[in-house]
Amino acid sequence: MNIIEQSATTLRQLISTKKISPLEVLDACIDQIKRTDPEINAFTVTCVDEARADAKRVEAQIMAGEDLGLLAGLPLAIKDMSLTKGMRTTFGSLIYENHIPDHDDLVVEFLREEGAVIYGKTNTTEFGAGNNTTNAVFGPTVNPFDHARTSGGSSGGAAAALAGNMVPIATGSDTGGSLRVPATFCGVMSLKPTPGLTPFERRIYPFWPFQLQGAMARTIDDVGLLTAAMARDHSIDPMSYPRDISAFSDLETVDLKSIRVAFTPDLGFAPTSKMIRRVFDERISKFQSLFGKAEVDHPDLTTAARVNWVLRGLQYLGSQKDHFAEHKEKLSPNVRVNYEQALDLTTEDIAWAFQEHGNLHREMERFFSDYDVLICPGATVSPFPKEDHFVANIDGEEQATYVAWAGLTNALSTTGNPVVCLPCGKDDEGMPFGFQIVGPRRSDAKMLAIAKALERVFADDPELSRPIASLTESEE
Amino acid sequence: MNIIEQSATTLRQLISTKKISPLEVLDACIDQIKRTDPEINAFTVTCVDEARADAKRVEAQIMAGEDLGLLAGLPLAIKDMSLTKGMRTTFGSLIYENHIPDHDDLVVEFLREEGAVIYGKTNTTEFGAGNNTTNAVFGPTVNPFDHARTSGGSSGGAAAALAGNMVPIATGSDTGGSLRVPATFCGVMSLKPTPGLTPFERRIYPFWPFQLQGAMARTIDDVGLLTAAMARDHSIDPMSYPRDISAFSDLETVDLKSIRVAFTPDLGFAPTSKMIRRVFDERISKFQSLFGKAEVDHPDLTTAARVNWVLRGLQYLGSQKDHFAEHKEKLSPNVRVNYEQALDLTTEDIAWAFQEHGNLHREMERFFSDYDVLICPGATVSPFPKEDHFVANIDGEEQATYVAWAGLTNALSTTGNPVVCLPCGKDDEGMPFGFQIVGPRRSDAKMLAIAKALERVFADDPELSRPIASLTESEE
Repeated sequence: MNIIEQSATTLRQLISTKKISPLEVLDACIDQIKRTDPEINAFTVTCVDEARADAKRVEAQIMAGEDLGLLAGLPLAIKDMSLTKGMRTTFGSLIYENHIPDHDDLVVEFLREEGAVIYGKTNTTEFGAGNNTTNAVFGPTVNPFDHARTSGGSSGGAAAALAGNMVPIATGSDTGGSLRVPATFCGVMSLKPTPGLTPFERRIYPFWPFQLQGAMARTIDDVGLLTAAMARDHSIDPMSYPRDISAFSDLETVDLKSIRVAFTPDLGFAPTSKMIRRVFDERISKFQSLFGKAEVDHPDLTTAARVNWVLRGLQYLGSQKDHFAEHKEKLSPNVRVNYEQALDLTTEDIAWAFQEHGNLHREMERFFSDYDVLICPGATVSPFPKEDHFVANIDGEEQATYVAWAGLTNALSTTGNPVVCLPCGKDDEGMPFGFQIVGPRRSDAKMLAIAKALERVFADDPELSRPIASLTESEE
Repeated sequence: MNIIEQSATTLRQLISTKKISPLEVLDACIDQIKRTDPEINAFTVTCVDEARADAKRVEAQIMAGEDLGLLAGLPLAIKDMSLTKGMRTTFGSLIYENHIPDHDDLVVEFLREEGAVIYGKTNTTEFGAGNNTTNAVFGPTVNPFDHARTSGGSSGGAAAALAGNMVPIATGSDTGGSLRVPATFCGVMSLKPTPGLTPFERRIYPFWPFQLQGAMARTIDDVGLLTAAMARDHSIDPMSYPRDISAFSDLETVDLKSIRVAFTPDLGFAPTSKMIRRVFDERISKFQSLFGKAEVDHPDLTTAARVNWVLRGLQYLGSQKDHFAEHKEKLSPNVRVNYEQALDLTTEDIAWAFQEHGNLHREMERFFSDYDVLICPGATVSPFPKEDHFVANIDGEEQATYVAWAGLTNALSTTGNPVVCLPCGKDDEGMPFGFQIVGPRRSDAKMLAIAKALERVFADDPELSRPIASLTESEE
């Protein structure tokens, strides 16, 4: 058995039944980092000694027959957007280049309590701004399928580490696609949760549906398992609500015949490349008949990109004010441009955006009275060159802002719907292709269950199954 | 037995056990309206024939032994801010003077489904703006304790109807104090719920903690009962969350000795009259020893009034844009001034307000780790003259805006905490005095339970018990 290829769910089972030691699992991951990460650059820091001590502690618990946490003994990587006690936390920014927090973020605290063995941080775009994981502190995290391309962002370190078998589960976060573009580009899975499912105490505007913490993994069960560990109901997040954790750690079996699905290549508005459209149409033709009802349809999200841009700008005016005033020269182009363009927003723009935000929410509610799930591509293009900060042009169409090309993901951030990312073969450029599986608010566990049913279907067909990176190349 | 003096909980019991007919109860309320309302002006419209038909339907259900709704056969008044199918709905505005909706608001739909006999609409300030219930369509709703004074607002019609025994339960709504100032001024009770507890589908910005629908009554059990009927979990309100309805319809018994309470006359910042401060201190001295821990303390809400003003302004820019453009001359001074002053807000003001909004939320969380409940006055002054649109001056201190004098209530709208209003005797001017009982988010049922324990204590002391208006005067 090759440890590094196993799912977290399998490893958790082997660990609790004493068939494998948490130390063995950790060492296998660390060896893989040594072999693979010099070229991929997924990890910013590792803390092997502390992780070994944690793994030993879990081992002692197992030997003593104690109750074990959901993630007991599982190696876990934390995105460098989360505070980790005693572990360098830079947010991908020169401003925090040498920042070592004295406490953990709440979600990291939960994960430790559930027995996770945290042994490293994963790379991010600066402050999570944009979808190419590169920054002035650590450089780019490249795509394990093609080292000339980006891993996506901002949770690109996590996605590449998973695709590179350097870790079985990893945390990410999402404001406009940061859990989804990297998962899609690297052929792994993720859940952008309903706001409030995974509490976040440092959200700049706590009542907004952005800065969401989420789980990434190589199987849907593993995404569910990690979500279960992250998803404690905590009032510090005002969007938090009571939930049943077991719905995540033990996903229901879904009969796809009972599900009404809408397919859309572009949510009706998002600039999406012809190639992605073609691949999307081809893939859905292979499995759409499995659903009880399947239509090409989409909600009216015409204003979603503009609403997202206004709200995003307002968020940057809050979160980057001090950085811009004191360290402007250290900021990446994405952050700087986002802040500067936000200064031009008018009060009228803002009032319009909030009102339209409400209309978009109500439109999604209307739409989900006709459908149980909406499926669209995970990204509008194939992974782009690692040098580019964003996609400036799609099939000849210039993109107005650095997030405009990512309308497929940021529209669904604005509406606040849960989204599961599920890979499905490769695109015409030989890079991973994947879906966003979108549901009504608080349907997170249901969307995971639907994704799991599809994952099973896809597993039987080499053209639909999760693509595997040829890591041997990077080991040479 | 005088029907109109009974609580809804008692009437519900008498109705379901066939000791009294829903028609008798309805007729008693209608008679009381005829006697009392010509002077009070709490109701805008009544629909006696339709209500009689509804009451007969409930009676038939009872006779047939069918399952009954929570409010089966109970007369109920709806604030004129809610859409009611076929019943004139003006929002207190000349713009909607003759508006007859073709459907009910969701919460009205729930209430009908629970068997409520809706027989009238209650007066409001125009679009709920401000705390004196008067408008150009229906004129002022006066205070049942002194007809020269306001009933408070914007749910003043509901509060006066309750104090005048014209109805046992009534709906209200609250953006800055509209469920609380009228309850306090008229000596009745209310719950401003945690955002999302009572879903509202027309909230201009659905993710904001304003425009909350809530219950008003003359006993805490009745507030709980009506809240239970209103509080269905519905995804059209993005702040909605799973809840246990029975916690409202059957309030737990609280041992006050187990409760840690903080008292504050002014939340540390709100302009509060000397007289109200004196009465507050005197009243709490009489019962504070009943609690396990009682301190004079308050969260740091220094910025709350300014945050509220900015967010409120932004809300008006959305909700009043078309009204201002097309019917400016018809708008009341409060609405017009609020809109015009909001036009001066800068993008920087707005970004600051959202960031500070988050800080205020976190400050309340911190505070409620030390206390279970915070108690402060329900209003900063005694009911003011019915001619004034707001309180311009408190003990010589000029108030900057039409909502500045109401800092005690609008600060708690900003933070989004649940608040129960509980009357406690009279103030030095012989007008009702009352408390706001404030808890952490989603503690609504617990706050009602604490209020119920205090209501019992207060009932034994004429100086602390709910004041009763001398309605005989207005009957002459």
